[in-house]
Amino acid sequence: MARTSGSHSDITGPRLRDAAQRLFAQHGYAAVSMRQIAAEVGVQAGALYNYIPDKQGLLFNLMKAHLDDLLAAWQAEPKGETPLEALESFTRFHIRFHLDRPDAVFIAYMELRNLEPANFAVIEGLRKRYETVLEDILRAGKDAGVFTLPDTKLATLAVIAMLTGVTTWYRDTGRLSRDRVERIYWNMVRKAVGA
Amino acid sequence: MARTSGSHSDITGPRLRDAAQRLFAQHGYAAVSMRQIAAEVGVQAGALYNYIPDKQGLLFNLMKAHLDDLLAAWQAEPKGETPLEALESFTRFHIRFHLDRPDAVFIAYMELRNLEPANFAVIEGLRKRYETVLEDILRAGKDAGVFTLPDTKLATLAVIAMLTGVTTWYRDTGRLSRDRVERIYWNMVRKAVGA
Repeated sequence: MARTSGSHSDITGPRLRDAAQRLFAQHGYAAVSMRQIAAEVGVQAGALYNYIPDKQGLLFNLMKAHLDDLLAAWQAEPKGETPLEALESFTRFHIRFHLDRPDAVFIAYMELRNLEPANFAVIEGLRKRYETVLEDILRAGKDAGVFTLPDTKLATLAVIAMLTGVTTWYRDTGRLSRDRVERIYWNMVRKAVGA
Repeated sequence: MARTSGSHSDITGPRLRDAAQRLFAQHGYAAVSMRQIAAEVGVQAGALYNYIPDKQGLLFNLMKAHLDDLLAAWQAEPKGETPLEALESFTRFHIRFHLDRPDAVFIAYMELRNLEPANFAVIEGLRKRYETVLEDILRAGKDAGVFTLPDTKLATLAVIAMLTGVTTWYRDTGRLSRDRVERIYWNMVRKAVGA
């Protein structure tokens, strides 16, 4: 493997990952070649593997980075004192985080089928960790008698699907501000869990 | 164009559309060739266009057939007398209809980006017609003072995203029957709209 200078590699690697993410989201993982990714950034195809792994490794790294960022960002979020405050924080956080990353969200849903089994297991594990964040909030609220839920697991999946759905239609140029959308969804989530 | 016998064409056309739907869902539209679709059914590539249009036409027909079926199936559904009954019918209908068609649901979401503009406009129009079904129910319930909703349009999108999400995790072999899932989601939808 050719030696690459730290600074060059530091810039080229992220640019290649950004290009891959854009191309995967636009055309689909299976339709994009490593040659296209290299051409997008102006790197020789032969030099590509100095900066990034193969296509499967690239997809895995993109999906893992997305979920690692998600979990780290939630860690850094102020969560309030009560289950109700935590659920409001989660609702607003989830919408905000995902609206900022439409390509990553699209790939996370669409390309699960293209992960090799070992990679799929890692991604599934991270996704479940994030779902557990919400499920723990819902269970705490249910145990405290604040939420009324027939099934915390299904409520978790229902709320996440509802909130992630915002990425399919929201445009910053539309009739509603992000804050207004967050407030409307929070109103529906709060009522859905019986609070 | 070669003349094909009615009965042969009647069988081969649907088999080719089924194969295309399966392959598009598995690999993505951009990664699948017409040659692969022909091979899947055992039709000579040269004879393909006796049965089906080109790849874009095939994608469009699949997405349009899915939405036409959806609207026709809803028309045939008993809807009850009140907005609350209609909303319960819609909730159960939407889950049931989409659980039966995972490939079509996946393509409907994933391949919108691959429709040519004129085709996209038709599909968007049908999708909006279906959304209007739910929005009309929500508005009727709001006008009757039965539902409390900050925004009927957003509630429409939120409920549809929540319900469609079931297709990403539900397995008939899992811990919950379809009827139980429908009842749990109905409980959450009813509360989310303040009824």
